Parts: sequence; C-alpha cells; structure tokens
Amino acid sequence: MQEVKEVNHFVLGVDIGGTTVKIGLFDMNKQLKDKWVIPTDTSEKGQHILSDIWQFVSHKIDPSTIHGIGFGVPGPVRQDIVLNCVNLGWGEVHIKNAFEAIASRDDLVIKVANDASLAAFGEKTFGAGRGFSEVVMITIGTGVGGGIIINHTLLEGKNGSAGELGHMIVDPKYLFPCNCGKHGCLETVASANGITRLAKYHLEQCDQASVLRTTPHLSAKKIFDIAKEGDLFALQIIDEAMDYLAKGLASVLLAIDPDCLILGGGVAMAGPFLIDRLRPKLMAYLSPFIRDLTIRLAELGSDAGIYGAMALIE
Amino acid sequence: MQEVKEVNHFVLGVDIGGTTVKIGLFDMNKQLKDKWVIPTDTSEKGQHILSDIWQFVSHKIDPSTIHGIGFGVPGPVRQDIVLNCVNLGWGEVHIKNAFEAIASRDDLVIKVANDASLAAFGEKTFGAGRGFSEVVMITIGTGVGGGIIINHTLLEGKNGSAGELGHMIVDPKYLFPCNCGKHGCLETVASANGITRLAKYHLEQCDQASVLRTTPHLSAKKIFDIAKEGDLFALQIIDEAMDYLAKGLASVLLAIDPDCLILGGGVAMAGPFLIDRLRPKLMAYLSPFIRDLTIRLAELGSDAGIYGAMALIE
Repeated sequence: MQEVKEVNHFVLGVDIGGTTVKIGLFDMNKQLKDKWVIPTDTSEKGQHILSDIWQFVSHKIDPSTIHGIGFGVPGPVRQDIVLNCVNLGWGEVHIKNAFEAIASRDDLVIKVANDASLAAFGEKTFGAGRGFSEVVMITIGTGVGGGIIINHTLLEGKNGSAGELGHMIVDPKYLFPCNCGKHGCLETVASANGITRLAKYHLEQCDQASVLRTTPHLSAKKIFDIAKEGDLFALQIIDEAMDYLAKGLASVLLAIDPDCLILGGGVAMAGPFLIDRLRPKLMAYLSPFIRDLTIRLAELGSDAGIYGAMALIE
Repeated sequence: MQEVKEVNHFVLGVDIGGTTVKIGLFDMNKQLKDKWVIPTDTSEKGQHILSDIWQFVSHKIDPSTIHGIGFGVPGPVRQDIVLNCVNLGWGEVHIKNAFEAIASRDDLVIKVANDASLAAFGEKTFGAGRGFSEVVMITIGTGVGGGIIINHTLLEGKNGSAGELGHMIVDPKYLFPCNCGKHGCLETVASANGITRLAKYHLEQCDQASVLRTTPHLSAKKIFDIAKEGDLFALQIIDEAMDYLAKGLASVLLAIDPDCLILGGGVAMAGPFLIDRLRPKLMAYLSPFIRDLTIRLAELGSDAGIYGAMALIE
C-alpha cells in the first residue's frame, strides 16, 4: 500500500554551482512544479549561499510546506558532510546543522551529495538509467566527471570522491597538464576543452588539410559538427578522443560491469554520433567479458542535478 | 539476541579450480573445522565435478548435517547461475538445480559466485578487509583477477564479470599478447608471468648488468628477491610492473574510492616490499582526491576462496 503523503508539501532539489544555484520545486509525487536560478555568492567564504537559497525560496512558497531539501555541491561529500568545495569557498560544512540554523527548523529532511554523482543519480532515477540497478554515468563537459550507482544506491566513496572519472590516466604521452596537477588525465584529452586542445595540437604538428584550419573560435561542438560532415582530420581528432574515453571507461566497466553506461554533459549533445564512434572502441577494449552493456545518452540535460538532489529525499 | 543455530550442522565452502577442488568444512559459528582437496575431473564437459564433491563429502561427514554449500567457480556468475567456465568444461549451469538432483535434497542452501570475487569476499569478511564496507581486492598470481565489495555485498556485475581487473589496458606499448585476445592488459605485465616476461624482454633489449642475467629459471619470486637485495635492474623491472599496477588500480580507485585495497595472490607474498614500491606510484596517480586509503596484504592465502564461498551462506 502506498504511503499517503501530504499533497501540499514540497521537496527542493538544489544544485549549487560556482556561478549559479539551480533550484527545483517538486511535489510529493516527485513532479517538477517550478524551477529557478539564482546567483551563487561566493564572497566571504561562501557563507551567504545557504541563507540566500532559503530567503529566495521563502519568497516563492510558504516555507512551512517544505518537507525536505536535497543539495548537490561541486566537491567531495561523505555521509551528508561536505568535505570541501573550493569553487564555493567552503571547507568542511555540516549542511544539515547549518541549514537548520538558517531555517529555524529541525524537522527538515536535509541531504547532500556531490553534484556529478547527483546528476548520475537523477538520470538513474528519472532519466536514461530508469529501471537499472548498476549505472555508471560519465559527464563530458568543460571537464569530465561522473557518478556511480550500485544496487540502486549512490556510491559516495571513502573520501567522498567516488565517480571521479575525469582523472583516470589515459594519455600515454602525457601531453597536457590537468587542473588536478597531473598530466595525461582523461579530462585533458576528452572534455570539450580537451578535444579542442587536441585539435589545436595536431593542427600545429601536421600539414593535413582540414576545414578546422580555417574555422574561427574552435570548439568541441564545431569539431564534432565538421567531423559529422566528413572532414577526415576532424574525424581523427574525435576518434582519438573517443579512444582515450574508451580506454578509461573500459577499466571502470571491467571493474563494475554495470547494467548501463550513460553519457552526459555538453559533449554528449553530439548525440548518437558520439555513441557510434565510441562503441566499437569500447568493445575492443572490453571484449570478451562485457558482452551485455546498455549505452545511453543522458535525458535530463542540466536538470539531472536537481532531479538527483530531490531523489535523495525520502 | 543471537539466533540459535543447530550446533551439529555444517556449511561447506567449495572452491572449484581447473585442477583441484578445495573443500572447507565450517561449523555454524563460521569456524573452519576441516579442509580437503580433491582432483577436478574435467572430462565429459565437467559433468562429474559436482557429484564427485558430494560423494567425497558424504564419506567424510553425515550428509544430513550439511546446512548449505557455497561454491566458487573460475568463470562469470550471475544470480547463482554459472554463465560459463571454460576451465571446467562448463557452459551455463544452474548449480542449485544440478546439486539438488545429485544430493536428492531440496532443503540445501546453495550459492555460487566467481572464485576471484569470493577470495575478495573471504578477505573482506574474515581477513584483511574485516570491518570495511567498500573493498577492492586484486589477486596477482599466475594471472591477475579481482573482486569488489560494495556496502558489504559482493558485486557480481551484469555479465557476472565485475572485478576483472587483469584486463585493464595499462601498457601503452602493447608489448605482449594476453590470453583474452587483446594486448597491453595488466595481466601481461604485472602478473607473476608478466613480471618474468617483462624482465626477459628488457634483459634482451639492454646490456645493463644484473644478477638476473645469470639466474636460472627466472620467476617473479626470484626477481622480487633479487630486487630486495638491491639489484638495480631487478628493481627497475619491479618498479615498471608496479607502475602498470598503479595506473590500472588508480582508475578503479578513482571510480570506487573504497575503504580498503587488498593485494593478494602469489606476488603479494613479496610482502610489505610490494606495498612500499606500489604506494608512492599509486598516490602519484590518485592525488589529490583519494587521500584516505588503507592498503593491506591478503591474510587468508589460498583459503580465501573457501571462506568467501562459506560466507555466501546465511
């Protein structure tokens, strides 16, 4: 028998980024009713961020109707404690305590997790991963992140860093430095920035003709578009990036052998073309153990985070 | 309150290998009471293996005292169905049905899982991984295998292949072919055979002086022993193998961020020296996300499999 829930109550899914905070208002049937974006005030060590959220929301709805809030943050989280968030100016934050003080309530259900993990959890619960038990999602945007769901549960990790797929070492030539301080990370050669960097590098290193040579303001999107039109050089760049992606993912897929791999982030907007270029490389690295693997494109776009944050709240 | 269990009953942990079957007799308090080894009869598609086990055990103890049997097999397993075991001559085997027919009983608790995964589960439950929730174990022997425990539960994988850590691609030069059909797998350069192969390859490629040049019947153990005595070349070989191991493990550890990494198998007999050579390389690949990671040597040796198999039985 389904539990009767108060129909006039709400759950918030809040995705706190370094520039903006996305807030999703969900009813108790997990339906998105409204969505707002407010700026992230990272001044004074980000101490205004949570109170800004509460103040904004309190002007939008009767705050007494809020049953719970799930938060996503761009940093490691373990057991509802944010360990640090450089982009927000935060060190360790006990988000439940902090928020209860701001809201002057102790009956709010408060949960928090890493934002990339929550995007994966959102897709698993409401998007491309619905119905699967074990899901690996990789988010290929400006950087590369990811999230892992095992037995329908988000994996946090001992250091709150499970799913950090962008920092697998995949480039044996260690061409480019990574923000993390290492060289050769997946993020340096397969993120949107990485693909662009790879193209510029090879354009300098060779004389091969390509539309890319006369394309202003190169971007991963343009490289994909030009590759789709048959430009051989652009296709080689995409295939090199897909080879790095396949090599990194293969290690994770061999270890976890999940039901479903989800590709998300801006680069995944390249659509089925991305899967078509990636799949044969992945199968070559994986064969012969991982025969059965569903590969899907993310469905929730930039809303995945607020869906995942909401899904944390029972 | 602890459940009262019949004191005169037993659980068997059975580790079926391609050459021998190890059988552990455990009392209901999970104490090992006896241990036997019988040959594996792989003739006629391995159809005698299960009946041989039952017949042997029935001569050792009153078979009516057996409460349950956990089996480990050298192949992929999903939801208590063996998908295939080339080494045993098996295709798909519903082990519970098959064994109940042999034992003429339908009240036996029968479970089955992959042998490398069970070794990990044994270590997690009774050995080096006691008390941890998330454990990754890598077994470095003739080949390289592994097992993964998440939330105290053995991870099987969609294809029954979770933990297949030996086939991560780590050698960018793709020097040696792997049994799996690919090149560059971790197993080709970091297993006992792989380390020996690496030494022979470099001995041929260079003129560097080394005790290894005059050592008959090179083996991983000898290379480790000679490296420990300060032979520079041997140390370089070990460090190259540890570098591959670190690179592969780093990908898995970044994805899962476990509480504990266990090193098992024959190569792990090199002891603390192994961890001393591996840890700095691992930390270089992992830094800065995975700060807190316990690394331990396996404790149960070749008994890990029977302990893990037993631990499947509630």
